[in-house]
Amino acid sequence: MALTLNQFQEAKIRLQNIITETRLLNSTPFSQESGHTIFLKPENLQVTGSFKIRGAYNKIAKLSADQRKNGLIASSAGNHAQGVAYAAQKLGVKATIVMPKTAPLIKVEATKSYGAHVILAGDCYDDAFAKASQKQKEENYLFVHPYNDLDVIEGQGTIALEIIQEMADIDYILAPIGGGGLISGVAMAAKAINPDIKVIGVEPDGAQSMKLSLEQNRIINLERCDTIADGVAIKNPGDITFPIIKEVVDDIITVTDYEILEAFLILLDKHKLVGESSGVLTLAAINKLKAKNKKVVCIISGGNIDMLNIVSMINRGLISRGRIFCFSVNLPDKPGQLLTIYKILATENANVIKLNHNQFKTLSRVDEVQLEVTAETNGHQHIQSIITELENAGYQITKIC
Amino acid sequence: MALTLNQFQEAKIRLQNIITETRLLNSTPFSQESGHTIFLKPENLQVTGSFKIRGAYNKIAKLSADQRKNGLIASSAGNHAQGVAYAAQKLGVKATIVMPKTAPLIKVEATKSYGAHVILAGDCYDDAFAKASQKQKEENYLFVHPYNDLDVIEGQGTIALEIIQEMADIDYILAPIGGGGLISGVAMAAKAINPDIKVIGVEPDGAQSMKLSLEQNRIINLERCDTIADGVAIKNPGDITFPIIKEVVDDIITVTDYEILEAFLILLDKHKLVGESSGVLTLAAINKLKAKNKKVVCIISGGNIDMLNIVSMINRGLISRGRIFCFSVNLPDKPGQLLTIYKILATENANVIKLNHNQFKTLSRVDEVQLEVTAETNGHQHIQSIITELENAGYQITKIC
Repeated sequence: MALTLNQFQEAKIRLQNIITETRLLNSTPFSQESGHTIFLKPENLQVTGSFKIRGAYNKIAKLSADQRKNGLIASSAGNHAQGVAYAAQKLGVKATIVMPKTAPLIKVEATKSYGAHVILAGDCYDDAFAKASQKQKEENYLFVHPYNDLDVIEGQGTIALEIIQEMADIDYILAPIGGGGLISGVAMAAKAINPDIKVIGVEPDGAQSMKLSLEQNRIINLERCDTIADGVAIKNPGDITFPIIKEVVDDIITVTDYEILEAFLILLDKHKLVGESSGVLTLAAINKLKAKNKKVVCIISGGNIDMLNIVSMINRGLISRGRIFCFSVNLPDKPGQLLTIYKILATENANVIKLNHNQFKTLSRVDEVQLEVTAETNGHQHIQSIITELENAGYQITKIC
Repeated sequence: MALTLNQFQEAKIRLQNIITETRLLNSTPFSQESGHTIFLKPENLQVTGSFKIRGAYNKIAKLSADQRKNGLIASSAGNHAQGVAYAAQKLGVKATIVMPKTAPLIKVEATKSYGAHVILAGDCYDDAFAKASQKQKEENYLFVHPYNDLDVIEGQGTIALEIIQEMADIDYILAPIGGGGLISGVAMAAKAINPDIKVIGVEPDGAQSMKLSLEQNRIINLERCDTIADGVAIKNPGDITFPIIKEVVDDIITVTDYEILEAFLILLDKHKLVGESSGVLTLAAINKLKAKNKKVVCIISGGNIDMLNIVSMINRGLISRGRIFCFSVNLPDKPGQLLTIYKILATENANVIKLNHNQFKTLSRVDEVQLEVTAETNGHQHIQSIITELENAGYQITKIC
């Protein structure tokens, strides 16, 4: 293997007093759901809100004075930016981070709060990367790659050491795959201690560049990514991570956006923990493990999600679980119609959240008005029962969501 | 004191393998904000999502076979319901929980999921309590009080044992006060180990029944509660908790709804942890401690907040922080006006979330339309700068929120 157990152990010492040794959390809800015994490795509770600080700090701490002297540069829309900025600040090294203009204000500010110089450039990660490469040459900065770097990989591998130190008899470790840095480190470190531990990667259906590369036995380049898990939306794997993963990772599972959303909601609702979409990939995959009844550690890789995003995730989730029901109904424009609708909703115990009463949306403006109702409901059966009652009363319902 | 250290230690043994020994989390953001060294005792990560399981289990475990045989009853809108239901299930005792009809569906379901029989009665806690008292007499159930019970108080006190076991040299413990059960146990246990530890209670401004009772040296009865922290909205303290608190609690701080909201948001955003409104009271109080530069443990008492509620807390918080800006502007109803507004918003880097374009809201329908804009902004300064630019371009802005 590219790195030895000894190297990971040295990295672990390097990270002492810098990072938090996150503790495993036993998960009743995910265990019940999957039939496995599930533990969470909550790297969302890590300093900077994700595991990235491990690799970034390890990398920068190993640089010589000469390598550090002109300062560092990195491009990132999120977690790597914060990891590099925080690590550079701790080590007293100047850092410049290029972020796409579309990065949420809150992540830009978090990066600045760690003392980094932030440049906003372009509309996507690729643009920011191009700008960073240009600046790197102009200023002779040292480029800190988010995953395709053995020192970064070595830092991420310390997660496996902590997991096994806390619980030696685990069967599986699940880790998300973006560029492959995290899982490369975790798999090499875990197998160096115990080759029987299975390490499984998880990618979104819409960004499975590593799975496809393994299948074709060459590094492929996705034309585009289509996933809510923006943190792992990487079009092509690294040429350092690819051969490592080919050698030491046991399998890759892919998950849908819907499965990611469900995992996010259960983590929030039952565990009181915020995970970002890429952060909960492993939880979205637990029902797809081929083995039964295993001791499984799911790495929650990060929790850096914008609050506006939390709101929209919750809203989407509530709709998909039938906890919110939106429908429209055309009403004859005469008194008493609203009352009838309200009575049915009250009898059915549906709590109305929002009403829109619009005379312009119907085809026959003169004698009908359109009512849009958003109500809090108790699942899809409840919704069906409301629809039935309204239809029995003679109304025609159009389900909006 | 009403309870001895030995009694708390026995309770701790009783709770082993039932509850989670939650670990202290070092809080950089709250430490930076307050100048103290702040640790969180995250009881939101406790089994059932709050500390209540400690008291409920301890109480039920100590009952004789005879006391248990007819089953238990409790009234609660939330955490105590789940604590009693879970504890009763673990101990194989039948439990009936009376909850107000207004309790969120999700809490009702959680309580049912622990095997309790749930009765929905009345519109508020008092109604549910009346119904529970009636059922208790009819069926000869044993009533499990949420706070005014020494066995319950003994269970809650185990929190202090865990805190001091993990960090012996703390200066302050902050705990929320509703009926006073949690702080009674925590203060007695903490002072039994080290009388120098200060224990401070926190109540909402709108439900400070304990603070006022102490000031008047008698148990007072609030006419009404007015706070977002529904879990501690108690009109009168218990006659068991009041004298204990009078003896062992050092001070009571009160906090506003706004301070609670801010604490909720920082916990969610920076710590990736969900706390309910009553659960974050102690964090809302850290800037009001009279001492400086102390080692402070804030008990996060629970995280059972409905997801719809999380959404509305986030929305309110974003508005109060200036991260969302809603305004209306009257536009002459001719082409090009929208474009001008958009250009200004784009130049100012304000991300438009929602638009409402309404011809009916203005007084002069004929020649003006009203535009309502909701945009993502970067704080109150940013909002002011947008207003100035729009006003310089000749538009009159009405701030909606």
